[in-house]
Amino acid sequence: MKSVIVGLGHTKFGRLDGSLEDLIQQAAREALADAGLSGKDVDAVWLGNFNAGMVPDGFCSSMILGADDGLRFKPATRCENACASGSAALYAAMDAIASGRVNVALVVGAEKMTAVDGPTVTRALGGASYQKEEAGMSFPQIFAEFAKAYTNKYRDPLDAMATIAAKNHAAAMGNPYAQLHKPLTVEFCRNVSDKNPVIAAPLKMTDCSLVSDGAAAVVLVRADMARDFRRATGFRAAVQVNDLLPLSQKDPTAFEGPRRAFSSAYAQAGVALSDIAFAEVHDCFTIAELLAVEAMGMAGPGEGVAAVLAGKTQRDGVLPVNMSGGLKAKGHPVGATGVSMHVIAAKQLTGEAGDMQLPDPKLGMIFNMGGGAVANYVSILERVG
Amino acid sequence: MKSVIVGLGHTKFGRLDGSLEDLIQQAAREALADAGLSGKDVDAVWLGNFNAGMVPDGFCSSMILGADDGLRFKPATRCENACASGSAALYAAMDAIASGRVNVALVVGAEKMTAVDGPTVTRALGGASYQKEEAGMSFPQIFAEFAKAYTNKYRDPLDAMATIAAKNHAAAMGNPYAQLHKPLTVEFCRNVSDKNPVIAAPLKMTDCSLVSDGAAAVVLVRADMARDFRRATGFRAAVQVNDLLPLSQKDPTAFEGPRRAFSSAYAQAGVALSDIAFAEVHDCFTIAELLAVEAMGMAGPGEGVAAVLAGKTQRDGVLPVNMSGGLKAKGHPVGATGVSMHVIAAKQLTGEAGDMQLPDPKLGMIFNMGGGAVANYVSILERVG
Repeated sequence: MKSVIVGLGHTKFGRLDGSLEDLIQQAAREALADAGLSGKDVDAVWLGNFNAGMVPDGFCSSMILGADDGLRFKPATRCENACASGSAALYAAMDAIASGRVNVALVVGAEKMTAVDGPTVTRALGGASYQKEEAGMSFPQIFAEFAKAYTNKYRDPLDAMATIAAKNHAAAMGNPYAQLHKPLTVEFCRNVSDKNPVIAAPLKMTDCSLVSDGAAAVVLVRADMARDFRRATGFRAAVQVNDLLPLSQKDPTAFEGPRRAFSSAYAQAGVALSDIAFAEVHDCFTIAELLAVEAMGMAGPGEGVAAVLAGKTQRDGVLPVNMSGGLKAKGHPVGATGVSMHVIAAKQLTGEAGDMQLPDPKLGMIFNMGGGAVANYVSILERVG
Repeated sequence: MKSVIVGLGHTKFGRLDGSLEDLIQQAAREALADAGLSGKDVDAVWLGNFNAGMVPDGFCSSMILGADDGLRFKPATRCENACASGSAALYAAMDAIASGRVNVALVVGAEKMTAVDGPTVTRALGGASYQKEEAGMSFPQIFAEFAKAYTNKYRDPLDAMATIAAKNHAAAMGNPYAQLHKPLTVEFCRNVSDKNPVIAAPLKMTDCSLVSDGAAAVVLVRADMARDFRRATGFRAAVQVNDLLPLSQKDPTAFEGPRRAFSSAYAQAGVALSDIAFAEVHDCFTIAELLAVEAMGMAGPGEGVAAVLAGKTQRDGVLPVNMSGGLKAKGHPVGATGVSMHVIAAKQLTGEAGDMQLPDPKLGMIFNMGGGAVANYVSILERVG
């Protein structure tokens, strides 16, 4: 039996006062209330969280149980796949529902990143790549390699990257959860300046996502229970493809893991890209959104730049991408991101997206990625009740 | 469809030269070879790993893919539930098989703990407890609280704890994977000495499990595929119960999470404790084994001491416990432990346990625990092919 999403929770993203536990429980309670359920109705809980030593939050799965007295003694499990940890938790819950073991699942994605200083976060995220050949490289440095390889093989992507940054900053203006409500011009994003310094050449500050605190949550139930809830969003596709970790063992421009995940998702859903109304994609760096545009098939290899510059991913384009503001401007509390993408997509499909709302979208696509095309999750969602 | 175990892999436990990646891949290759499969036959992989910042191994799920060329592009997910991370990975794989999404799963549990110094490990493990009221407490201090509460409520457990330590050290002599092959007398374990100092009163060194490197792996397949393999071990029960993290919010002597997990496992399997031939239980500290003996129902509350002193858990007792040497002497590479327990139990049930072998056991029980009775997994296994 497939899963449907019937409850949504989402904290503000940004530099927040609460602890990891506070964030987890806030999102969990909101999702339960949204579904009209209490803890005793839940069969099991999952947490998506990355941590990697950034904060003393190892063994955090059971923190969810504190959100509601009825949750005590339910199974609680943490899943981790770097920046795709939220989707890892969601997909584990879907397996449990499909197996018949669980009817109602609560899934929370959360991260508390601002509790430590910037260099520590950078070091932890760099350590997370754990690639022998690139030991100690930071995440910006890893994605700088993708940008350099793209430039060498195809063309200069910097104009497209600036266009992506400006688009996502503009989109975040409509997202009340977004960390930044700060529109930036393409020109500002394109040029190196005191306010937009180089982080890891050719990536500038405006090419990088944010260091954020935040949590998001969903309640999943068996698809045949959808009628008991005021609205439900279902999965037409849910695909996970992992690739090897070391950058040296793959072609960075090919984005092969994501490409395979998109392709399998279309096949699983029985749809083409042209059937998709919008996409939330993993723009940890603007080069990643550009490569995702190609991997999803909107443009051929090396032709993503032209597609982006032609406005195909803008709000009025053929496929609006990241109308939430993306990781770029919504924020990127690592473990929360995958769950947040599903929450935002569900809101779009059920007409609850407020100022982000697109006109009557039927199918929404999500691409959540861990590492440099290492853990790749593609979901295609539709309203089912 | 239920899962069966058809491939087993297990590295030596101890202070090992290899990296985390080496350990993971060694166990993975051994389990695949044991099942007569190669990477291309596998549908998805799971990794149980705790880490908690002890080593730079965040985002380690995809490390398994390097074990065999055929594994590239398969889904890979890390699960974490502190010292029960191995079981968390195993149970996630079982959900995926039961859901019909996966036919063949490779599950590895692994930890590299000796790469950092002792105080760092202690600090990391202490941080992992993340209990507001007991912030900074080390794991030995947490379990010392269990021992003190037991003493206050029932009786002095120190004789029983020394008996448990000596039993497990003796049992490890038959386990080629064990970290320590060093028999200790009950008297040595009972008394404080230069060689057996107090770690966290009343816990002495011989009451504590080890800091270890190691990995273990299993191949799981759909139960109806068992006939294609030379032997298979199935699950009569697989139960997970999580409790709240803070020690202050529960009665330490009640061990309520484990108690509920054992009870549900007997119900799921349709058996009584008297039907079980042996158990591998989570003796991270000797007091934990004592409390597990009560939680499984071998003795009433406070009567576990008498049961242990009467020899009920010895090799020739009514229920031999930890004939592998347990975490105490086999070693406790945190993420590996849950998978190791299932590997050892499968070997017992299929007559492959070598010098550990018990005479023709029909049902084996596993209790893997994360934290102080927080994440509790109980499996009951039997040979099915």
